[in-house]
Amino acid sequence: MEVAQVLHMNGGVGDASYANNSLVQQKAISLAKPIREEAITSLYCSRLPRSLAIADLGCSSGPNTLFVVSEVIKTVEQLCRKLNHKSPEYRVFLNDLPGNDFNNIFMSIHSFKEKLQTEVEGGIGPCYFSGVPGSFYARAFPNQSLHFVHSSYSLQWLSKVPEGVDNNKGNIYLSRTSPSNVVRAYYEQFQRDFSFFLKCRAEELVEGGRMVLTILGRRNEDPCSKDGCYIWELMATALNDMVSEGIIKEEELDSFNIPQYTPSPSEVKLEVLKEGSFVINRVEMAQVNWNPLEDWNGVEFESERCESVSDSGYNLAQCMRSVAEPMLVSHFGGHIIEEVFSRFQKILADRMSKEKTEFSNITILMTRKA
Amino acid sequence: MEVAQVLHMNGGVGDASYANNSLVQQKAISLAKPIREEAITSLYCSRLPRSLAIADLGCSSGPNTLFVVSEVIKTVEQLCRKLNHKSPEYRVFLNDLPGNDFNNIFMSIHSFKEKLQTEVEGGIGPCYFSGVPGSFYARAFPNQSLHFVHSSYSLQWLSKVPEGVDNNKGNIYLSRTSPSNVVRAYYEQFQRDFSFFLKCRAEELVEGGRMVLTILGRRNEDPCSKDGCYIWELMATALNDMVSEGIIKEEELDSFNIPQYTPSPSEVKLEVLKEGSFVINRVEMAQVNWNPLEDWNGVEFESERCESVSDSGYNLAQCMRSVAEPMLVSHFGGHIIEEVFSRFQKILADRMSKEKTEFSNITILMTRKA
Repeated sequence: MEVAQVLHMNGGVGDASYANNSLVQQKAISLAKPIREEAITSLYCSRLPRSLAIADLGCSSGPNTLFVVSEVIKTVEQLCRKLNHKSPEYRVFLNDLPGNDFNNIFMSIHSFKEKLQTEVEGGIGPCYFSGVPGSFYARAFPNQSLHFVHSSYSLQWLSKVPEGVDNNKGNIYLSRTSPSNVVRAYYEQFQRDFSFFLKCRAEELVEGGRMVLTILGRRNEDPCSKDGCYIWELMATALNDMVSEGIIKEEELDSFNIPQYTPSPSEVKLEVLKEGSFVINRVEMAQVNWNPLEDWNGVEFESERCESVSDSGYNLAQCMRSVAEPMLVSHFGGHIIEEVFSRFQKILADRMSKEKTEFSNITILMTRKA
Repeated sequence: MEVAQVLHMNGGVGDASYANNSLVQQKAISLAKPIREEAITSLYCSRLPRSLAIADLGCSSGPNTLFVVSEVIKTVEQLCRKLNHKSPEYRVFLNDLPGNDFNNIFMSIHSFKEKLQTEVEGGIGPCYFSGVPGSFYARAFPNQSLHFVHSSYSLQWLSKVPEGVDNNKGNIYLSRTSPSNVVRAYYEQFQRDFSFFLKCRAEELVEGGRMVLTILGRRNEDPCSKDGCYIWELMATALNDMVSEGIIKEEELDSFNIPQYTPSPSEVKLEVLKEGSFVINRVEMAQVNWNPLEDWNGVEFESERCESVSDSGYNLAQCMRSVAEPMLVSHFGGHIIEEVFSRFQKILADRMSKEKTEFSNITILMTRKA
């Protein structure tokens, strides 16, 4: 599987689109807001840039895409009012793999800017948007061209499925039954990828530039613990059932592995320290319920709280579908998709009714050393 | 009609796509090559930039999109070899209206870069691509951020249909039967749009930056001469026939006008001189046959030269369809499209068999004053 070609969220705005199924990711972004505010405030006050270059890496295509950009601009404009400064110019770079639905984002930018202009008293500085297609596991921007880099729910994706995981039979990611060589291969791929990511961003950020990364991870040190693996184990259950019934070939399932690694906070910190270009300012964990509406504080979702457990199963299955469908189609073909997600939905609803199921997110704020 | 929402070439890679029907535009680009080479050579030698920012405005989506970029990079790399310089870094900005099929371009960038690396001996400097959605009749880039601006077959499009052309009955663009107020309205809209375009680009280009614009225009001073209007007159013939047969309502046709103006070289020069930020280095006219294969010098089309006149009619109708379909659909609805272009194709084939039919292109090279 060529990850750079195959990995992308479902495009468009249909029922199975990422745009309509990204509440978990929205919740994660929302929880990290205080950290981004700290980053932007310290960045602005230390550098007072007249032209602020912001990049969102793995921006996807949906309501989350421009959410952070809007928040960053509002924070800067508030600072400008308080300090009696003129608004800076904003250069916004939206990055994702080439298969991402950039057309969908681009169609919304004009109204997004108009809305921001009316929402912020006194208006905002000139705002230049561009889309930057390509992997963030490579240089994506010119030398020292960025002030602030943001990425949420993207860095758990690896640049490729690790090599030497052929014996991960019956699994599609790490699980308690994964052989030790598979666990090592996944961890080493994460180390290589994340370390190279840091090196590239260190070249692209100005001195004193800030980076805030939210990564789907795990709380404890065991890479095979339920915390980081459970959701894929349940998808593997659906796929294994289909193997037993002869709908999918066993070899097909055995050769399918998800290019993902859910690191622990200490694994993330270790790579940052080893790479050496960044000072770590803050690391935080946050839990998001598999049903993000369940512990949601916002008012807008109040009316939907009474939804049934089966709806939650459907919502999470759709969310996972919007993320995983292109990979599954590329490996198994499109004909199995409805069946996989119908089974997956039932398994998820069952689990969510019986236990507390959560995603663990790590958010790290760091500063490019001088 | 909201031009910024409606005007875009047909996306994708299907039979009616711009990507597969843009030979006329390719020919025009190819004819202006010496002028771009002159621009790039003088720009590089006068400024010796270590990071070269290139923008293509109205880049569309197809084989032409990256053609000029590839040529510019090759020219610079040749200069670097000759002068024994290290390759610069390239920042390439591809601009078009938000309805353009950017996804299609973005999918091809990786292989485009790999191909360029192998085609140029010794490889090329680092290359950063981004897509910039938005009208070029507005600021699209930060202050003094560009070295070279290119645009081909885009600036004949106006920012909107001029106001006060309600009495342009039976026509869809200027024609010999257009009332004088309509002719004036079209010319004044061109003046406002082109002048504002120049003002925006003057702010975005560095001092000494170069701009090469190829505009579909006309050779003589009469805006209603056949030279600039004939192709739309023939489309109007097809539409008027459909009005006579009751397929289209007369009011519908009367209220449809193309947001285009095909200027003369002196009209173009006049606006540049009036705006005042640019020195004009060169202005050239070039003719492109409606059947671009007919006077094509390239070898690759040799085998297709024997195509029949009816094929030429089909090809040009498809070319015009890839350009005009979204506008026609927006005004008349999708149901008339097949019929319009089937009739248009026959009219074109007839005309092309009986007279010499050509597009007139103006290419202007200018330099941002210090």
